[in-house]
Amino acid sequence: MTAGAIFVFELLGTATLTLLGCGVVANVTLSRTLGNNGGWLLVNFGWGFAVFAGASIAAPTGAHINPAVTIGMAVNGQLEWSQVPIYLSAQVIGGLLGAVVCWMAYKLQFDTHDDPANTLGIFATGPTVRNGTWNLVTEIIGTFVLVFWILLSPGASTGANGIPDFGNAALGYAGVAFIVIGIGSSLGGPTGYAINPARDLGPRIAYALLPIRGKGTADWGYAWVPIVGPILGGALAGALALALPAT
Amino acid sequence: MTAGAIFVFELLGTATLTLLGCGVVANVTLSRTLGNNGGWLLVNFGWGFAVFAGASIAAPTGAHINPAVTIGMAVNGQLEWSQVPIYLSAQVIGGLLGAVVCWMAYKLQFDTHDDPANTLGIFATGPTVRNGTWNLVTEIIGTFVLVFWILLSPGASTGANGIPDFGNAALGYAGVAFIVIGIGSSLGGPTGYAINPARDLGPRIAYALLPIRGKGTADWGYAWVPIVGPILGGALAGALALALPAT
Amino acid sequence: MTAGAIFVFELLGTATLTLLGCGVVANVTLSRTLGNNGGWLLVNFGWGFAVFAGASIAAPTGAHINPAVTIGMAVNGQLEWSQVPIYLSAQVIGGLLGAVVCWMAYKLQFDTHDDPANTLGIFATGPTVRNGTWNLVTEIIGTFVLVFWILLSPGASTGANGIPDFGNAALGYAGVAFIVIGIGSSLGGPTGYAINPARDLGPRIAYALLPIRGKGTADWGYAWVPIVGPILGGALAGALALALPAT
Amino acid sequence: MTAGAIFVFELLGTATLTLLGCGVVANVTLSRTLGNNGGWLLVNFGWGFAVFAGASIAAPTGAHINPAVTIGMAVNGQLEWSQVPIYLSAQVIGGLLGAVVCWMAYKLQFDTHDDPANTLGIFATGPTVRNGTWNLVTEIIGTFVLVFWILLSPGASTGANGIPDFGNAALGYAGVAFIVIGIGSSLGGPTGYAINPARDLGPRIAYALLPIRGKGTADWGYAWVPIVGPILGGALAGALALALPAT
Repeated sequence: MTAGAIFVFELLGTATLTLLGCGVVANVTLSRTLGNNGGWLLVNFGWGFAVFAGASIAAPTGAHINPAVTIGMAVNGQLEWSQVPIYLSAQVIGGLLGAVVCWMAYKLQFDTHDDPANTLGIFATGPTVRNGTWNLVTEIIGTFVLVFWILLSPGASTGANGIPDFGNAALGYAGVAFIVIGIGSSLGGPTGYAINPARDLGPRIAYALLPIRGKGTADWGYAWVPIVGPILGGALAGALALALPAT
Repeated sequence: MTAGAIFVFELLGTATLTLLGCGVVANVTLSRTLGNNGGWLLVNFGWGFAVFAGASIAAPTGAHINPAVTIGMAVNGQLEWSQVPIYLSAQVIGGLLGAVVCWMAYKLQFDTHDDPANTLGIFATGPTVRNGTWNLVTEIIGTFVLVFWILLSPGASTGANGIPDFGNAALGYAGVAFIVIGIGSSLGGPTGYAINPARDLGPRIAYALLPIRGKGTADWGYAWVPIVGPILGGALAGALALALPAT
Repeated sequence: MTAGAIFVFELLGTATLTLLGCGVVANVTLSRTLGNNGGWLLVNFGWGFAVFAGASIAAPTGAHINPAVTIGMAVNGQLEWSQVPIYLSAQVIGGLLGAVVCWMAYKLQFDTHDDPANTLGIFATGPTVRNGTWNLVTEIIGTFVLVFWILLSPGASTGANGIPDFGNAALGYAGVAFIVIGIGSSLGGPTGYAINPARDLGPRIAYALLPIRGKGTADWGYAWVPIVGPILGGALAGALALALPAT
Repeated sequence: MTAGAIFVFELLGTATLTLLGCGVVANVTLSRTLGNNGGWLLVNFGWGFAVFAGASIAAPTGAHINPAVTIGMAVNGQLEWSQVPIYLSAQVIGGLLGAVVCWMAYKLQFDTHDDPANTLGIFATGPTVRNGTWNLVTEIIGTFVLVFWILLSPGASTGANGIPDFGNAALGYAGVAFIVIGIGSSLGGPTGYAINPARDLGPRIAYALLPIRGKGTADWGYAWVPIVGPILGGALAGALALALPAT
């Protein structure tokens, strides 16, 4: 596959991820929506099936749509390091574009929201209790589970070009969706489970750039946590998977 | 397959879709039901598994049960344009019939509802903030995700007669159900995610015709949005899928 | 397969169905449980995965665990009528036994419930608005969707002895679980979706017989509806499936 | 497979189970989380997908991650008794380690919780009405359903070394996740569905050892119930499965 094709599919997959993922938080957060105050399980299913949709669309590239997965695969030896920059740039730009489209879908709701200064959470994650070290620990743990599962999953055999193949069925990526629903339910409580730098950085840039009515700060002081934590968690998973005994 | 057989299976599948789909909104909306005030996630699962049921039943025809899918497939070159009118007429009539049966299932609840003038939402979609342009944008985006996923889904190989084949397993259509649950959770907040002209127009006609106790208006002024938006979204997905690089 | 083996597997499957199905209503209804007031979606998932569990266990007999399915298959020509009594008696007795075990699991909660006269709903269904004709219509419609889906489901090929085969995977019966979750969400509002005479009659007998603290009436005046409605719905589905055009 | 490899995979799988499982209860219980008061269905999905994640990771060893499954398999003749101690020790130690990591992920939330003496429920189960005999009955019933389903599940064919094989697809363990969601929804109301001695004992030891701010008692007086009940339930399932008629 050409670098251009990798770029296109990863960008489309990650854009779908943040379009749907930011969308469910918009639905739950904004005042004049049908899903207002819909609860945490709704948010978990929204993000989980956002991963399902985005991963299916990015299937030709191995469905990374997440720099932590890309880096975990490279550390694990399943992806050449030379391809990593193509994946990462597509993911961040895709994450940004998906958030822009999400804002378009909820344009009227942003314009009529009762508390417009508090809309950053629709785009980017933030901690319920702020502490760089422990927030980082939470993001490392959540991402480790995601990438470790992907690397060990019985269906994640390595296909051509070092790209894992979850099977060719329409349902193939439901497994990763279930894992993401599980991580959100179980480990999303403290920091909102970024577990994906592109999912956080792309939409945060979108929030900073878009003419959102009455918007607040993009909280750049926290932005390093959902970048560094997932990268460390993904790399750790890639390394630990190499150290496992033979089966 | 004969035109008559296509008509029968698409009609039965779309009728099942609106029977169950309108049903879950009736369950959540009407005063004297067991699911009253059941929440947005319940609505999303109801519509998602309504798609699962209807698509399984319409499997012989490719399980369109949605004019946006049919048109997206035709634009994509997977369906002959001459077959489109058969699909579309069956879908709208099926959508209407399913809504009639839903009203029968909830007849006693319609008769005892506390706020009978506000029951259109059981049948047809409507915006939380009314604005033709942006409501249209929301419907285009939601339908684009649905049809683009179907066209790119790893299991959507093209079978005989240009009809895609999601696999022959009983679970084959769970993937599209998950996508619809995801779109509803994430993009359904502003307009109630018609993302299917037959799902909206058929039941809206049923609402206008049925002797529902104390019913209000069918809001024909909005009816063009959930027709035009999904058609544009489906066509856009069909065209963009053609422009993708080879994998 | 011998009549005795059919009896054993159908009994075990239906007992598992009502153990888990009555269990989720007990969890939501009784005062001193962890799931008290858990909502309609919890009830739907409880019954849906109760079907998944029971159907998997009764896989060797075609996983009917429901007289409406058995009768629909016989009408459809997929089962010999001579086997129907074996299936039906096993299902009703199994349904009764499962409800007894459910009472054992919640014994302490029945003993400490705040409103002991209102516990019939844990065992048997009842209407929110009582009207024999329309309650029957609702049960016919719900059961029709279930049995029609089973008969048309792409994976429901006919195996040896006229027994359909949903595939041999551990996940094979998840499809019917999703349909039951869908029917509960969408058509369960008026009558509590018996859609299975054994699921209602067996536990209703159990309620009448068990020494439940402070229990109320078993409401035998309504008991015919969840028997007659599902049988008619299943037979109708079996007949209509025969009339479909060739694909 | 070597004893060491069995130990590693069972430990990692059970640690993942309790990390995610205890995590969802922490999310619902602790004051300053995004999932606070998220409801029983959220807890059920959290534990269900915790099983999905842990079982996938422990696939090479048959994905027991539960002494009740190990003992049920040994009673059923699918596992040599000599291997049982390896499985059990790995499961309890893994269960302990996962709970420690969960505490790390929620460290800031434990430190800021409004009611710190009542946090044992995040780690270990407890009854809503305390009565050793009936609490035991509830745990036996719930575990019986789990292990009986695993032993009879159509996909649970016996592979090499007496280890059952749920299929090699990424989705293979979703079936057992659905069963666990069902058991939690339906039978979890009275005792919190331990149905797994390692899931309860390991985290209970962790609670006793960890420096959790303001923590209460570990309630060792109840700890025998979620050990003895699941072992009896699993052994009963293993024995009954042997007595079934041939299919």
